[in-house]
Amino acid sequence: MAKAGVPCSWNMIAPKKRSSYAVASAGNPPSLGITNGKKVNGIHVRETPSPYTSNTIAGEMAIHCNVAEPHTYLLGRFVEDRLVYRQTFSIRSYEIGPDKTATMETLMNLLQETALNHVTSSGLAGNGFGATREMSLRKLIWVVTRIHVQVQRYSCWGDVVEIDTWVDATGKNGMRRDWIIRDYNTQEIITRATSTWVIMNRETRKLSKIPDEVKEELVPFYINRLSISAEHNDVEKIDRLNDETAGRIRSGLAPRWSDMDANQHVNNVKYIGWILESVPMHVLEHYNMTSMTLEYRRECRQSNLLESLTSSSEDPNSSSSNRKADMEYTHLLRMQADKAEIVRARTEWKSKLKHK
Amino acid sequence: MAKAGVPCSWNMIAPKKRSSYAVASAGNPPSLGITNGKKVNGIHVRETPSPYTSNTIAGEMAIHCNVAEPHTYLLGRFVEDRLVYRQTFSIRSYEIGPDKTATMETLMNLLQETALNHVTSSGLAGNGFGATREMSLRKLIWVVTRIHVQVQRYSCWGDVVEIDTWVDATGKNGMRRDWIIRDYNTQEIITRATSTWVIMNRETRKLSKIPDEVKEELVPFYINRLSISAEHNDVEKIDRLNDETAGRIRSGLAPRWSDMDANQHVNNVKYIGWILESVPMHVLEHYNMTSMTLEYRRECRQSNLLESLTSSSEDPNSSSSNRKADMEYTHLLRMQADKAEIVRARTEWKSKLKHK
Repeated sequence: MAKAGVPCSWNMIAPKKRSSYAVASAGNPPSLGITNGKKVNGIHVRETPSPYTSNTIAGEMAIHCNVAEPHTYLLGRFVEDRLVYRQTFSIRSYEIGPDKTATMETLMNLLQETALNHVTSSGLAGNGFGATREMSLRKLIWVVTRIHVQVQRYSCWGDVVEIDTWVDATGKNGMRRDWIIRDYNTQEIITRATSTWVIMNRETRKLSKIPDEVKEELVPFYINRLSISAEHNDVEKIDRLNDETAGRIRSGLAPRWSDMDANQHVNNVKYIGWILESVPMHVLEHYNMTSMTLEYRRECRQSNLLESLTSSSEDPNSSSSNRKADMEYTHLLRMQADKAEIVRARTEWKSKLKHK
Repeated sequence: MAKAGVPCSWNMIAPKKRSSYAVASAGNPPSLGITNGKKVNGIHVRETPSPYTSNTIAGEMAIHCNVAEPHTYLLGRFVEDRLVYRQTFSIRSYEIGPDKTATMETLMNLLQETALNHVTSSGLAGNGFGATREMSLRKLIWVVTRIHVQVQRYSCWGDVVEIDTWVDATGKNGMRRDWIIRDYNTQEIITRATSTWVIMNRETRKLSKIPDEVKEELVPFYINRLSISAEHNDVEKIDRLNDETAGRIRSGLAPRWSDMDANQHVNNVKYIGWILESVPMHVLEHYNMTSMTLEYRRECRQSNLLESLTSSSEDPNSSSSNRKADMEYTHLLRMQADKAEIVRARTEWKSKLKHK
């Protein structure tokens, strides 16, 4: 029952040739012999000498604290026999929005950070953002094709959140990465997220199978667990908006130098800000985004001017009968010049009065 | 020799009536009886019950660690008899730019966070962003008029930095806040910053004297120490650019909803991104910004379209003979409609080959 997989780059580049990847359904949990951190799921895992690694957990502090340095607590650690990676964050003053709570962009940034530290701490990291060694040797990178986030409650400045992340196989050549965000003090689950990743050759930009050597790296870390149950997930197709179907179009959006990431691409988290630019102001002010699904289609560089399209769904609960939103929007971010798609999105919103 | 002062809001709103505030010169260090944290500079300071407070320092961990929670290490603590506030941060994956090092915006965000936590931890915090209780009672807020940052080295993803901040009086009605950023592992000082703050009535938008009751709150926290010595500081006037003097003008810059802060204003750190929009791309790619001075003139709301102007200085070392930059630029960020000034800036740059 051991499966393959671990990391993810936060590269957001749609493959030239697309496949569809079903979200893995919950199956039998792994029931393998897991030992002291050197064997996971019965397979030997190289211990990492990375500075990111901290096996210290709260309950062990009394044992370790003579040698622990404060900065080790800034990083994450493995829990549940190295199958789940956990990192704690304090929401900072500049991570909150006009309503004084963490923004969706902040949540996405923290999910990214936890995912990348998971890879680094696993000892598998190659030379790329989240690529494993065997991937780097083959010029392969992870690309995200879909991400879905559900927010039960947004945190405030100073709140401490605890993020768990783990990975599993999905389809033949995909990896699923899930996250759960808890309020550190109450342990209440306040956000759930799931994402689908495929492997691409960074030079040819073509999709690749997961090579056996990469599978061997990944297998020990897979865990069959869903952050969002199948019935609550958003797996529906997102319609492609156009000039006719979009109620609102905002043109002339220009990526800034400061929107670029370490791959010289527009960081995919930045797309959220542009998507919101075509959402009515009264919605931004009086509603909380409770669900967001992004379907990535194409990479974006700094020279591209963008357009943001938004359309209100006729039946707000059509695709989300389990989530009961007050309103639902479909979005498209596209190139202004040739109208090529970059990201499709669906968002759901609840009145701030009801969603606290 | 005891003086008054502590906090700072990150409000960036130029006063209607401007005064000039000299940067305080280094004088005699405080030589007062400092006791166990309840008396500072000989004056009683209320102990804070704030969750932000952590008096635990690295060397004391063995004593405290049975009760310490991991998240206390995410916050800051007082050092040097409560005259200096210190917080440690790990540079995150989304805080680095295209060259894989922390951006100037990231540094400014971390300075802001440390300053606000300083105020909160002091037990003085009122209901505003950095305002003291006595200020909040009087509807007074802090506004920054000038900030100057010198960067010796930019950190990489995963690097841990330690930020010290403290405050002092400057002029009759100003407060100076300084910062030092160290590489946590080497303790090398990698960034120095200083800023000047005045008090404004948040309703009338007029400058105010510091009321005696506010001075009494602040006095115990003042320390006569400079992060940047007088000879290395940038205190020169920044010329106002116009259409004739600006070599490059970038128009149509539109603040996004996601650029707004908790005060419904454009967060002042965001200005840096717009200023950079009129800097030549080859400079952004091949040079590091080693010094930045911002002079804030006017607040900015979301509806305002902005223009970014940049001019290369004729003599790069004219105002920075101690800093020896490869090039120096003057900038202006202004409203597009009425050309009203928002921020004047001066930046200095060194080749990345030389500045590592």
